[in-house]
Amino acid sequence: MSSIHPIQWADGSIRIIDQTRLPEDLVYIELKSHQEVVRAIRDMQVRGAPALGIIAALGVALGAQKIEAADQEGFLEVLTPIIRDIASTRPTAVNLFRALDRMEAVARKGRDVPRIKKALLAEARLIEREDAEANRRLGGLGAELIPTGATILTHCNAGALATGSYGTALGVVRAAREQGKDPRVFATETRPLLQGSRLTVWELLQESIPTTLITDSMAGHFLKQGRIDAVVVGADRIAANGDVANKIGTYTLAVLAMENGVPFYVAAPVSSIDISLGTGDEIPIEERDPSEVSHFRGVPVAPQGTNVANPAFDVTPHRYVTAIITEKGVFQEPFEMRLKKLLKN
Amino acid sequence: MSSIHPIQWADGSIRIIDQTRLPEDLVYIELKSHQEVVRAIRDMQVRGAPALGIIAALGVALGAQKIEAADQEGFLEVLTPIIRDIASTRPTAVNLFRALDRMEAVARKGRDVPRIKKALLAEARLIEREDAEANRRLGGLGAELIPTGATILTHCNAGALATGSYGTALGVVRAAREQGKDPRVFATETRPLLQGSRLTVWELLQESIPTTLITDSMAGHFLKQGRIDAVVVGADRIAANGDVANKIGTYTLAVLAMENGVPFYVAAPVSSIDISLGTGDEIPIEERDPSEVSHFRGVPVAPQGTNVANPAFDVTPHRYVTAIITEKGVFQEPFEMRLKKLLKN
Repeated sequence: MSSIHPIQWADGSIRIIDQTRLPEDLVYIELKSHQEVVRAIRDMQVRGAPALGIIAALGVALGAQKIEAADQEGFLEVLTPIIRDIASTRPTAVNLFRALDRMEAVARKGRDVPRIKKALLAEARLIEREDAEANRRLGGLGAELIPTGATILTHCNAGALATGSYGTALGVVRAAREQGKDPRVFATETRPLLQGSRLTVWELLQESIPTTLITDSMAGHFLKQGRIDAVVVGADRIAANGDVANKIGTYTLAVLAMENGVPFYVAAPVSSIDISLGTGDEIPIEERDPSEVSHFRGVPVAPQGTNVANPAFDVTPHRYVTAIITEKGVFQEPFEMRLKKLLKN
Repeated sequence: MSSIHPIQWADGSIRIIDQTRLPEDLVYIELKSHQEVVRAIRDMQVRGAPALGIIAALGVALGAQKIEAADQEGFLEVLTPIIRDIASTRPTAVNLFRALDRMEAVARKGRDVPRIKKALLAEARLIEREDAEANRRLGGLGAELIPTGATILTHCNAGALATGSYGTALGVVRAAREQGKDPRVFATETRPLLQGSRLTVWELLQESIPTTLITDSMAGHFLKQGRIDAVVVGADRIAANGDVANKIGTYTLAVLAMENGVPFYVAAPVSSIDISLGTGDEIPIEERDPSEVSHFRGVPVAPQGTNVANPAFDVTPHRYVTAIITEKGVFQEPFEMRLKKLLKN
C-alpha cells in the first residue's frame, strides 16, 4: 500500500530520501561511499531501527564494491574498518549491529574477492527484503488487535520511512486500513526532531488516513479523555525480558496508557530483539547534540548558555507492555520465556 | 530576589515585557488602551494565571481613566463592555475573572466618577501587591517541603514572568535558594509555546540557579531514573475538590510523579482556587490556534492541511496532587473540606 521507499540500491550508490528535508521537500540524495552513509546516519537523513539495519548492510556492500584486494585477507583488512565506522554511528538500535554482524559473517565465509562482493550485496538486499516481509506480516498480526474505528496513538515515526517500506507501528495502521477497519491516528510531534509532525503525518496524509497532530505533552490529556483506543509504537531494541528501548517519550506514553486502561503495543521485527541483554537497563542510550533541544529547526529557542539534556531514547519496563507484535507472532507476558523460545527457533 | 517585573503601571499606560520576544530580546511595550491590553493577553505577550489577574485589573483601571461620564450610571455603561472585552480573552485562568469581579464591585460601590477612577486604580494596584505578597509567602511555605540539594522538575513558566514578580512554582525554588537549600531545576520546554525554554530558563539563568532544559517527552525518563526529587507546578484554576487545571502536560507529569514515588506539588495563590466548581471537569479548557502546533515562529513543521488539536491546558485529578501550596498554608487530602474551610474565612 505504501509507495514510500526511503532506501534504494542504485547500482554503485544508495539513493535515500533525505528525511531532514521532509515534509517541505521530498529530496532524494545519492550516497556514493560508506563515509557518506556514515554521515547520513549520524545526521538522521535516514533513521528508524529497521531502516538503520538496511542502510548499514547496504553501506557495507557499497564500501565493499570499491575495495581492491587480491585475496580475502586483504579484503577484510579494508572492510573491517568500514564496518566499524558504520557501527560507531548510533548506539541504540540493535538492527544496525545485527545487520553488520550478518555482513561480516558473509565476508568471512567467502574466499574469492569478486564473489564476496556479490554475496555481500545479495545479503544486504536479503536484509532489505526480509524487513519488508516482516513489516507486512507483523502489520497484519497487529491489525487483528485493533478494533474497527479505533483511534491509535503513535509516537515518533515507525512508518515506511523508518523501515524498508511498510512500517512497524504504521504497518499495523496500514494493515488495519487494508482490513477495512478505518483506523484513525493521533500522532505526537516528537520533539526534539519532530519525526511525528514531519514524517508520520506526511506518510498518513498521503494515504488519507485521518490523523490529528498533537504535541508530546497532549497525549495524557487525550488518553484521560478516552479518545485513544490503543497506543502502538515501534522499538529500537527489546531486551530478553521484554523491556523496550524506543524514542524518548515512549515510557511516558506507556505509563499513561496503563493508568488509563488503554493497551500499549510495541510493533517490531524479531531483528529488534536483543536476547543477549537481560533487561532494558543494559541498552545503551544515545545522548545527542544539545542544540537539537535548545534550537527549533535551527532557530534558538533558549537563552545562550542553557544547559540541556538530550537522551534520544528511553526504556519502557516490560510490565507496561500489553503485547509485542512481531512477524513471528504476538507475545504477552511472560516475555522472557516466550522471546527466548522464539529466538532459539 | 527577582528583579523581573513583567507588568508595571506607568501613569496612563501599562508597561509590560513582551514575553513573545524572550529570550532573544527583553522588550518593554506600552499598552495605552484597554483594546491593547486585550490584544496583549490574546497574543500571550503577557501570560500566567496570577499575571492575568493583575493585567486584567490594570486594564480596567486604564480603560476607566479615559471614560468621560457625568455620573456612575454613564460611567458603568462604558466600563461594562470594557470588562466584558477583557473577560473574553482567555477562559481558563480564574484569576482573570476574579480580578474583574473585584474591579466591577469597586465601580458599582462608587458615586462620584473621579473617585471611582481613583478607587479602580487603587484596587488594581492592591491586587498587584497582594499577588506579590502571596507569592513570597507561598514560596516560603513551599520551600520548607524541599530537601536541601533537591532537583525540582517544573513545567511551563510559573515564575516572576507569570505573576507580579516572584513566582509561584519558581517562587518555591527562589525561596528554597534563599533558605540556602541549593535547589536545582529541570525545566520542560513546554510545547507549543515554549514557555519553559524561553521564559523559565531565562529567569533561572539570571539568578544562576542550576537548570537543565529538557523536552516535555523527557520528564518521564528522568523521573524513572530517580533524578527528580519533587515536581512543582503552578495552576490556572483549582476546583473545590482539588483538581488542578494547568498548562497542557501537567497531568502527564503528575501521573509520572506518582508512578515513581515523587511528590507532586501545586503552588498557587488562593486567588487561583475556584470553589464554585465542584470538580476539574467543569473548568473550561482553552483551545488555541492550530498554527501554534503546526508552525514554529511562522515556519511550518507539519505538512499543509495537517489536522491539529491544541488544548492549552489539562486537568490533573486531585488524587495525583501531594499538596497544594498557597499563601495561607499547605493543603493535602481531603482537599474539598480544607479548601472550602480556607475560602470561608
